[in-house]
Amino acid sequence: MPLGTDLICTGADVLLFLDQKRTYLVTAKKGERFHTHKGYVCFDDIIGRPFGRRVKSSLGVDFVVFPPRIRDYLRKMRHTTQVLYPKDIALIINYSDIGPGSIIVEAGTGSGVLTSALAHYVQPTGRVYSYEVRKEFVERARKNIERTGLAEFVVLKEGDVTRGIEEERVDAVILDLATPWMVVPLANQALKVGGSFVSFSPTIEQTIKTTEALMDNKFVDVETVECILRRIKVQAGQTRPETLMIGHTGYITRARKTLIAG
Amino acid sequence: MPLGTDLICTGADVLLFLDQKRTYLVTAKKGERFHTHKGYVCFDDIIGRPFGRRVKSSLGVDFVVFPPRIRDYLRKMRHTTQVLYPKDIALIINYSDIGPGSIIVEAGTGSGVLTSALAHYVQPTGRVYSYEVRKEFVERARKNIERTGLAEFVVLKEGDVTRGIEEERVDAVILDLATPWMVVPLANQALKVGGSFVSFSPTIEQTIKTTEALMDNKFVDVETVECILRRIKVQAGQTRPETLMIGHTGYITRARKTLIAG
Amino acid sequence: MPLGTDLICTGADVLLFLDQKRTYLVTAKKGERFHTHKGYVCFDDIIGRPFGRRVKSSLGVDFVVFPPRIRDYLRKMRHTTQVLYPKDIALIINYSDIGPGSIIVEAGTGSGVLTSALAHYVQPTGRVYSYEVRKEFVERARKNIERTGLAEFVVLKEGDVTRGIEEERVDAVILDLATPWMVVPLANQALKVGGSFVSFSPTIEQTIKTTEALMDNKFVDVETVECILRRIKVQAGQTRPETLMIGHTGYITRARKTLIAG
Amino acid sequence: MPLGTDLICTGADVLLFLDQKRTYLVTAKKGERFHTHKGYVCFDDIIGRPFGRRVKSSLGVDFVVFPPRIRDYLRKMRHTTQVLYPKDIALIINYSDIGPGSIIVEAGTGSGVLTSALAHYVQPTGRVYSYEVRKEFVERARKNIERTGLAEFVVLKEGDVTRGIEEERVDAVILDLATPWMVVPLANQALKVGGSFVSFSPTIEQTIKTTEALMDNKFVDVETVECILRRIKVQAGQTRPETLMIGHTGYITRARKTLIAG
Repeated sequence: MPLGTDLICTGADVLLFLDQKRTYLVTAKKGERFHTHKGYVCFDDIIGRPFGRRVKSSLGVDFVVFPPRIRDYLRKMRHTTQVLYPKDIALIINYSDIGPGSIIVEAGTGSGVLTSALAHYVQPTGRVYSYEVRKEFVERARKNIERTGLAEFVVLKEGDVTRGIEEERVDAVILDLATPWMVVPLANQALKVGGSFVSFSPTIEQTIKTTEALMDNKFVDVETVECILRRIKVQAGQTRPETLMIGHTGYITRARKTLIAG
Repeated sequence: MPLGTDLICTGADVLLFLDQKRTYLVTAKKGERFHTHKGYVCFDDIIGRPFGRRVKSSLGVDFVVFPPRIRDYLRKMRHTTQVLYPKDIALIINYSDIGPGSIIVEAGTGSGVLTSALAHYVQPTGRVYSYEVRKEFVERARKNIERTGLAEFVVLKEGDVTRGIEEERVDAVILDLATPWMVVPLANQALKVGGSFVSFSPTIEQTIKTTEALMDNKFVDVETVECILRRIKVQAGQTRPETLMIGHTGYITRARKTLIAG
Repeated sequence: MPLGTDLICTGADVLLFLDQKRTYLVTAKKGERFHTHKGYVCFDDIIGRPFGRRVKSSLGVDFVVFPPRIRDYLRKMRHTTQVLYPKDIALIINYSDIGPGSIIVEAGTGSGVLTSALAHYVQPTGRVYSYEVRKEFVERARKNIERTGLAEFVVLKEGDVTRGIEEERVDAVILDLATPWMVVPLANQALKVGGSFVSFSPTIEQTIKTTEALMDNKFVDVETVECILRRIKVQAGQTRPETLMIGHTGYITRARKTLIAG
Repeated sequence: MPLGTDLICTGADVLLFLDQKRTYLVTAKKGERFHTHKGYVCFDDIIGRPFGRRVKSSLGVDFVVFPPRIRDYLRKMRHTTQVLYPKDIALIINYSDIGPGSIIVEAGTGSGVLTSALAHYVQPTGRVYSYEVRKEFVERARKNIERTGLAEFVVLKEGDVTRGIEEERVDAVILDLATPWMVVPLANQALKVGGSFVSFSPTIEQTIKTTEALMDNKFVDVETVECILRRIKVQAGQTRPETLMIGHTGYITRARKTLIAG
């Protein structure tokens, strides 16, 4: 996702940045306005000008206009369920050992946030096969993924991954669903030897069951981690970690597939 | 880095896995042996057979033979300085918004661990321009990177990044060096609008100085985080976070380049 | 603070417990009611009965009636400024090496939360001399401390601790104020040899300045810690750390006074 | 435990302080020497002089001579099992709501570290009844506690606490043993109404079982926390959390006893 030209054209996605908590990912359309609680921004004030400058809203508030990046698209996706935080996406990507060209099975798709992140990293020659059993989620995910421009690297599959995985010899199976232990035997069949199983679960009981299933299926190098991210307020004379933080999102369990006999 | 065939050929890199703390990344050579403190492994017992099975050492200890993956290469690189941990590499990748095709300036190269990780994610069309002022580091990094097979995506540059960055309109500038604040004005010139500045520093004083330099240079969306990774021992009836952990590696500071006038 | 009789008498403080976030510390008065957003509780339904049972509000909601304990008094104190969390109070008590009979200088008093906690642990023969420069704080603290029944163990002193400490040979000097480093030389004079200096500060800059002042004043055994408390949701099948947590309150710095010459 | 006179007399306990990792708690005896790997210290160089000064070892290394405090005694106790860390002792004290005069049941005694800490805070009118089933532990604990001078506030009971608690109407039951859930019904009988149950357990499974037993026995205000302590290296230009840290010791579960019918 290389950054485009620095001149904003009509139809381009732009990120209006007020501060870290107030950013807006919108499409610049000639003659139209975008309304915020700090006044509206006229796209005609933006189009044809370079990215990276300030634009004034009708209330005189400055927004910086940025070309959106992959993290912006992920953060702005519509979702009803809890979505993965960037810290967990980052570790899942790392622990799955994937990269450009990787073939991945993912389940469940959910809102498509992790799906899009995976697609971003495996493009242009890799593919993400993403299973989701709830039809309405598949539709929302499709729209979310299309907006990122990564749809061609994703195959959305409406279906229950605990019933079967059609793909074979995949590089990684990545799970964010309620019963990952039920998918472990299927993941074992779908994976290449040495391929990565990675699963995200909020509770320790899910993590224990998944770990036991991995052991039973002769995975090795099984490990579980939890990532705690602290945001630091950095300001001369007032530097300190932020008062409120996300204390827990989930545990990440990973393992390698073997050919060891049962 | 897709996984190769499951049959081990001579000259192939293999990962001998005993347990999570004892793994060996070696090249399988016909007629040769690899010595461990658990006895030696004859490569002839491996070559021509599939990955993912056990091989017995001369002392009867079982090793699983895996195709090495990017994380294995990174972990096994030779280094004299402190190298980045996977958790920090993962977040740096995420915060830099890079992906296949991205153009990156990195400094300092050090042992080439982060360089290789970056190359892995920007291949095949992206490039990592990596600056390192210490000649002996450049040589070690070159060997380390070559072993990963990612050398063609990296341009190693022996030189002092605080003296100047030759590249222009790059997607990200990524720093792991002692005085990142000295590079901020140069990073500002080298970056595309909206491009990512990401810096890793062990101490809070480095972080404060870097943040102030970013503010002075009109970067916005400036934030600093610290990632704390807990490993969890998962075992029925004995589940708990591990007793000893890495308490701190460093702070990661990121920001976006603007065109706002000084 | 031993628990009194189990029968509730008029005039007694009682803790009405609905759940961990909704508790009420009130005085039981014959013929009166206490109003909550879950209906009112008639004290006549409580008085003369044992502690530890449920009472129904006018809306049929059950409250458990407990004898209040020191932590309840501390938590329910009126305050305008940020008060110390139990985790930090606990560590300050521990690090100061105080106990029954200890003589303590504290500053600033603030709302009297830490003052009361200290008085609780040094009673009946110890004393807490607590300095506070803002007159209105002294008055509020006085009322807060009186309610705990610990007032006889506290000497509230309206005055600026940075101007001087009158007490001598005290066991501990405990600080929770904006410029602790300014108090370090005075603490050095006030302390017994081997006595404890303990200071709480939200920011790292305060902590650095205080540490330097301690070094300059020949304190040894200087250390700084930060306590991160995670609350765990424990429930079969859903066990996990809580999602939101207090990420940071402050750093605690402690040291021992010496007689080493400057 | 108020600090004694500043002059060191023969027979006094002294803490020889080299640095935070190397401290020695010894008894000063006329004509004798104490050997360290930094040379020996002659007690005759110490006796009759004030605390808080430096003494030179035979190798010319300076030790500061301190009057030992409660934390020093706890840290220097002989033990074979894992003992509680100060951070956990501090929270257990806080969560149990005890203070001078409190009556406590504790199990198991172990090496007597927590026992001594509890005795320190409940003296002079309170008591700690401490159960330990292993005879050799009782003997070691007795010696450890005697050294602290707190023995008169402790009643050591050799016996299995899961078989019964003899005390009644106690202020707190505090557990550090393998199967705390087996003690919950007995704790319920032994506690005063509103009294505190506090238990420390390394694993999450123990914590879950204990929480369920507390619910079954109608305890309320049940909560579990974990305390993570970071040590910060504070030094101008090099300030940062320490690299290695204790990642986990255990979970602390607390609750209040009710009279609610089963």
